[in-house]
Amino acid sequence: MTSAAPTTSSRDLPHPARADIRLEGVLHALSDPMRLGIVRELAADTGRELSCSQFALPVTKSTTTHHFRVLRESGVIRQIYRGTAKMNGLRRDDLDALFPGLLDSLLAAADRQATRLGVPG
Amino acid sequence: MTSAAPTTSSRDLPHPARADIRLEGVLHALSDPMRLGIVRELAADTGRELSCSQFALPVTKSTTTHHFRVLRESGVIRQIYRGTAKMNGLRRDDLDALFPGLLDSLLAAADRQATRLGVPG
Repeated sequence: MTSAAPTTSSRDLPHPARADIRLEGVLHALSDPMRLGIVRELAADTGRELSCSQFALPVTKSTTTHHFRVLRESGVIRQIYRGTAKMNGLRRDDLDALFPGLLDSLLAAADRQATRLGVPG
Repeated sequence: MTSAAPTTSSRDLPHPARADIRLEGVLHALSDPMRLGIVRELAADTGRELSCSQFALPVTKSTTTHHFRVLRESGVIRQIYRGTAKMNGLRRDDLDALFPGLLDSLLAAADRQATRLGVPG
């Protein structure tokens, strides 16, 4: 036995398998401006994981937790505990395999809308 | 004066202008399996208008009306009264202008999922 705790533990959060991800669930997850913003930030930082606290969301901690949970349960993001931090990463491989081109189309549409409305991208 | 009633009348239904259509609203509208199915049917019949009653939805009339209203209010479809029938058409021009490629990506993703799950397309 080693003294290092395994990265995955009983605190593992439930994630849908790739085959259980549904388009409707993904669209629902992205239909909220805050969740769409989170996904845009994760997509901008290719492959990097970000902790929930790195997102400066103008809502309570419990609302933040809720938004990340919706994204995780729909299969859009993967959340992994690293120590006390919950780290978040986009499930790009899974989404691209299921729906080729969709994520990029959605991100492009979100960029375009942000530019059109003059809000920060 | 002519005896023909104008196509548009006081019974006109409210639609968002193109500039008021929001990506989040479109995604919310498409996040329901029944509404996504309606949009796929409208897209398959390019340019054709279909009346609400042409959709054989396994729900009550009021639920059907609700789903069409969500699609209209989000800017996904246009609903026009023709006589006593409410006719529905996809706002493809508006959606393509705002979010180039997005509608086709969404329809392709929905087709792919239907094939994968073995449900009627």
